[in-house]
Amino acid sequence: MSMNNLGIVKRNIVRADKAAVDKLARFGVATIHEAMGRVGLMKPYMRPIYAGAHTCGTAVTVLLHPGDNWMMHVVAEQIQPGDVVVAAVSADCTDGFFGDLLATSFVARGARGLVIDGGVRDVKDLTAMNFPVFSRAISAKGTIKATVGSVNIPVVCAGAPVNPGDVVVGDDDGVVVVPAAIAQQAADAAAAREANEADKRAKLAAGVLGLDMYNMREPLAKAGLKYID
Amino acid sequence: MSMNNLGIVKRNIVRADKAAVDKLARFGVATIHEAMGRVGLMKPYMRPIYAGAHTCGTAVTVLLHPGDNWMMHVVAEQIQPGDVVVAAVSADCTDGFFGDLLATSFVARGARGLVIDGGVRDVKDLTAMNFPVFSRAISAKGTIKATVGSVNIPVVCAGAPVNPGDVVVGDDDGVVVVPAAIAQQAADAAAAREANEADKRAKLAAGVLGLDMYNMREPLAKAGLKYID
Amino acid sequence: MSMNNLGIVKRNIVRADKAAVDKLARFGVATIHEAMGRVGLMKPYMRPIYAGAHTCGTAVTVLLHPGDNWMMHVVAEQIQPGDVVVAAVSADCTDGFFGDLLATSFVARGARGLVIDGGVRDVKDLTAMNFPVFSRAISAKGTIKATVGSVNIPVVCAGAPVNPGDVVVGDDDGVVVVPAAIAQQAADAAAAREANEADKRAKLAAGVLGLDMYNMREPLAKAGLKYID
Amino acid sequence: MSMNNLGIVKRNIVRADKAAVDKLARFGVATIHEAMGRVGLMKPYMRPIYAGAHTCGTAVTVLLHPGDNWMMHVVAEQIQPGDVVVAAVSADCTDGFFGDLLATSFVARGARGLVIDGGVRDVKDLTAMNFPVFSRAISAKGTIKATVGSVNIPVVCAGAPVNPGDVVVGDDDGVVVVPAAIAQQAADAAAAREANEADKRAKLAAGVLGLDMYNMREPLAKAGLKYID
Amino acid sequence: MSMNNLGIVKRNIVRADKAAVDKLARFGVATIHEAMGRVGLMKPYMRPIYAGAHTCGTAVTVLLHPGDNWMMHVVAEQIQPGDVVVAAVSADCTDGFFGDLLATSFVARGARGLVIDGGVRDVKDLTAMNFPVFSRAISAKGTIKATVGSVNIPVVCAGAPVNPGDVVVGDDDGVVVVPAAIAQQAADAAAAREANEADKRAKLAAGVLGLDMYNMREPLAKAGLKYID
Amino acid sequence: MSMNNLGIVKRNIVRADKAAVDKLARFGVATIHEAMGRVGLMKPYMRPIYAGAHTCGTAVTVLLHPGDNWMMHVVAEQIQPGDVVVAAVSADCTDGFFGDLLATSFVARGARGLVIDGGVRDVKDLTAMNFPVFSRAISAKGTIKATVGSVNIPVVCAGAPVNPGDVVVGDDDGVVVVPAAIAQQAADAAAAREANEADKRAKLAAGVLGLDMYNMREPLAKAGLKYID
Repeated sequence: MSMNNLGIVKRNIVRADKAAVDKLARFGVATIHEAMGRVGLMKPYMRPIYAGAHTCGTAVTVLLHPGDNWMMHVVAEQIQPGDVVVAAVSADCTDGFFGDLLATSFVARGARGLVIDGGVRDVKDLTAMNFPVFSRAISAKGTIKATVGSVNIPVVCAGAPVNPGDVVVGDDDGVVVVPAAIAQQAADAAAAREANEADKRAKLAAGVLGLDMYNMREPLAKAGLKYID
Repeated sequence: MSMNNLGIVKRNIVRADKAAVDKLARFGVATIHEAMGRVGLMKPYMRPIYAGAHTCGTAVTVLLHPGDNWMMHVVAEQIQPGDVVVAAVSADCTDGFFGDLLATSFVARGARGLVIDGGVRDVKDLTAMNFPVFSRAISAKGTIKATVGSVNIPVVCAGAPVNPGDVVVGDDDGVVVVPAAIAQQAADAAAAREANEADKRAKLAAGVLGLDMYNMREPLAKAGLKYID
Repeated sequence: MSMNNLGIVKRNIVRADKAAVDKLARFGVATIHEAMGRVGLMKPYMRPIYAGAHTCGTAVTVLLHPGDNWMMHVVAEQIQPGDVVVAAVSADCTDGFFGDLLATSFVARGARGLVIDGGVRDVKDLTAMNFPVFSRAISAKGTIKATVGSVNIPVVCAGAPVNPGDVVVGDDDGVVVVPAAIAQQAADAAAAREANEADKRAKLAAGVLGLDMYNMREPLAKAGLKYID
Repeated sequence: MSMNNLGIVKRNIVRADKAAVDKLARFGVATIHEAMGRVGLMKPYMRPIYAGAHTCGTAVTVLLHPGDNWMMHVVAEQIQPGDVVVAAVSADCTDGFFGDLLATSFVARGARGLVIDGGVRDVKDLTAMNFPVFSRAISAKGTIKATVGSVNIPVVCAGAPVNPGDVVVGDDDGVVVVPAAIAQQAADAAAAREANEADKRAKLAAGVLGLDMYNMREPLAKAGLKYID
Repeated sequence: MSMNNLGIVKRNIVRADKAAVDKLARFGVATIHEAMGRVGLMKPYMRPIYAGAHTCGTAVTVLLHPGDNWMMHVVAEQIQPGDVVVAAVSADCTDGFFGDLLATSFVARGARGLVIDGGVRDVKDLTAMNFPVFSRAISAKGTIKATVGSVNIPVVCAGAPVNPGDVVVGDDDGVVVVPAAIAQQAADAAAAREANEADKRAKLAAGVLGLDMYNMREPLAKAGLKYID
Repeated sequence: MSMNNLGIVKRNIVRADKAAVDKLARFGVATIHEAMGRVGLMKPYMRPIYAGAHTCGTAVTVLLHPGDNWMMHVVAEQIQPGDVVVAAVSADCTDGFFGDLLATSFVARGARGLVIDGGVRDVKDLTAMNFPVFSRAISAKGTIKATVGSVNIPVVCAGAPVNPGDVVVGDDDGVVVVPAAIAQQAADAAAAREANEADKRAKLAAGVLGLDMYNMREPLAKAGLKYID
């Protein structure tokens, strides 16, 4: 028995149901996070490289080592149309692991985006390509190709556990991970939540206060809130 | 005598003079900060959520607790047209305390913006609404409604003391707080400064050096500056 | 012999060859960094103040002290058309050392941009002027004029050594420094690299994998990479 | 009317009651913070420069500018036996504003410690002197004496508002500020809390669970907690 | 099917083999991390609260929410002698979730230590108790008891996935997690590694160079290393 | 002409005068930094791994790559008695590049310490060995041996330029670099400064104020300082 799974590429993974992924693509990260019961978020340092970037797809995962992007070429081959590459790094590193050449390859394979717990470069080109990337840093620093990591193993990316095949959604608010097994359920819950929000929005726009709409006045008083003049 | 003022909502506050607020709205944060004698700035981590965001209004303040946005609903009721909500948090927290629903409510109450020493979400919607928000973070992370804080008490937000009724101005350079009592004086000083700057700008554009315009050559020499070839 | 070179303005510096600078201006920061053998980058906290900012020019350097921008006026006089001002600070400081007035003066002198290991303000104006600035922070905080630093001495800016006359290139990926002596060589290498990249890009876009294009399969296997189903 | 109070030294301040200060000196920072209702804490980056440092005294405040410690000499004269100097800085700065010479002067004046939102140096000497210092950084970087700040004005230090005469308490857990007006009340509350804790500690040491001691089982069940095997 | 496992306390977990845990307790974190193939480390911000702290035990896990330590009382009941509590937080928070009262309770239950991705307080007392705590922060800030989390679910703590029953080892170098299933194997590998290191240490102490001991000269030359005078 | 000097080991370097180094060893970092005119300091994140660590010696420099400590073995051979190894990294990385085995080798070669802009491990052992290490981080994370860097080239370490042969001094206040050419001059200036300080210390201890000792009252009044009651 091996003590770690470094140096492994898993070719066959079970991807989340495509219809569920497509449905999740209609909702924002905050809505999905809420719909799931407030779990699955990556840390807020994970940011889109351009405003308005949005991605939703099934995760193919890759574990990189600091300063080494060799495995990005390995993961490219495992991409299927509709996938989002999720790249973890075995230690904090802001180097530019990814640029326009790899993006070209990823797009050719059908990738919908990249979420990487490291740096990227060629930001101008990636923006022009409209290829959604979420990263912890932007850096022109080049990387080497010397150490093997793994592809399609469970990883922790920006504090969130990601399994291959999970749904990954990113927008201006950050990135959320939906386990494949609950993708449909999460999509349904997100839809219900959003429907519910439209009604609330109309009321609030009309001047109704959340205090009244949510019946908060009594619990606030019980919690000790006092009004003074 | 109570040892803290948690759990208090002060309904009647003295807002800065409206004419002074309107006049201050014509100037940038850097100009106002300079005009006041270089005081009143929040720390530079306080950033607009979209480029070009600008707000100027009278502060209604709220003290939140980490991970809890209950008081945002309480403060909504205290908003009057022309106000800017200033939200402090009792400990550093990047959670998303505010999103498009609360923004809808704030707008309905006449709020001109939000300055929050925490995170916000629904950034795409807030940007589309053109609702100016200045925050320390962007995060989809939801919050609970369990603990009372206070409204319209003095707070410290991003390092700056803010009293209810003070003028709060935010733009691409950050956020500055003008005490209500000196709002008119600060506006006048800002106007004087800006008039003065137009003249300087013209001279500098014509090639005059600051060294000469400000008569710096002699004091620099006295301070020991030496030119070598 | 003096123990430091504070309080010195060096008037005559040897600038990198103009043709080489112009050639370098055609390439991105990542390409130049790679072409030079992966050296010369500033740290990734050095960011453009607006998306799409690009600069390339010969460095005039200035060493500032925290909270003091006096030397920015001194360096203005040393600017020649085609220069980029590179400002180091003797200790970490995010104050706004530079704004639209200084920018107006710099532009009148022919400056192509500013790279500063501190803060800047008047970001809206600087953006409207299309004056490229790369900084570690944005802050409205004003500075004093009390302490002399030096101009056109070797400095360390955001972790990178910069000598007066070196070529400094900045874009959305960060900032790279090309020593004057190798500017032409670096420009040639960048051109060669870019030509080479066009070919690779076409292959990758056509679906060829980096694994095959770079002949990585065998070395990966030797390094222990295993495929499983 | 002046728009700021820079350049002011207030000589007469009302210090908290000495007996209350002495009583507060017997309790830890966490206890006092709790006793006051969970307010008054500085941010956790404010740390003692050596393990076991403890201070409790009345605040004399000073506002410094980045890289400038001139006012530390001004504040020295205002120290009375039993005071703790609280130094704020008008912008984040880690320079070494304070070292063994100033400490010698402070001790001669009767100071009980220093809390500074900046850096200090001569840490080995300060430790040997057993002079308690709480700071945001340690740095050998020297400072200049060029700009006036103020002494005994209200300041914000590490996020906490401090008025001259307030009680400031620091230990291994951080620093807490007790407004002078409630010093006795806070001391009494702290004493009550500590007495109460001794009893709890004994029960917990004997194996009683907090779940039972605090009657948490029912509220936890109501909140939805479920036990599974 | 529930979309998350919040609000769950799992009572029966499979703990790593006791003999393996005891064996692992003899080795340092770096050795174990290496022996496992360089995996399992928490991020380096996770630090002991006092120099020399060491812990090794089986993980009981708890997921907290920011500013809320209610579940720390719930997890106390699940502690068995030899356990180490591993506390994750659903968002970054430095509040003081743990102090001397909880430590007293944990010790009474047989806990060997605490690893918490948040803050702790009463550091002086914890140190006097010699209770090993590894945390991301020290803060006197109190927490509330309002929201349920979960106990003995898989968590991510400081970037590392931890399952209940895993072995957790902490020392001055940080914290490493050993999955329960490979505890014995990891202990054996650590022992082998340490035996091997003793021999290397002796050679190096005698002046043998790593260059020779590891036969690096030829691969370095092949990699292009050149010696000049 | 090569564009960079990666892959180079320079064997013969000119070390600072031994007598000057020995003299500098008698002074603290702050004193030397002041004596040189306030230059040469590394950034304050560079900290000793144990309180009281002190080192002073001649620099042998090494440039590492993130996650790769191969060159630490190469630099070991270049150490001569009295040297301090100064390790820069081509990108920010906190991995543990150095531990007790390398320390054993360094000590055998006569090294007086290590200054590294990265992480180290085996902190307990290094402390027991009393081997002074100054680092930006502590981390058990292992590194690989795959990429060549260089030895005895000029580097930038924690923001400070270091040339091989320079004097490097580290203590509880941080690390300062003294160029070899001015080592004797700096040592003399430090001695003069320290002699001068003893006299000042005695006066301050006797209650003389810095305000009077340094004749600050008049310049403070000129700068606008006002006393009020």
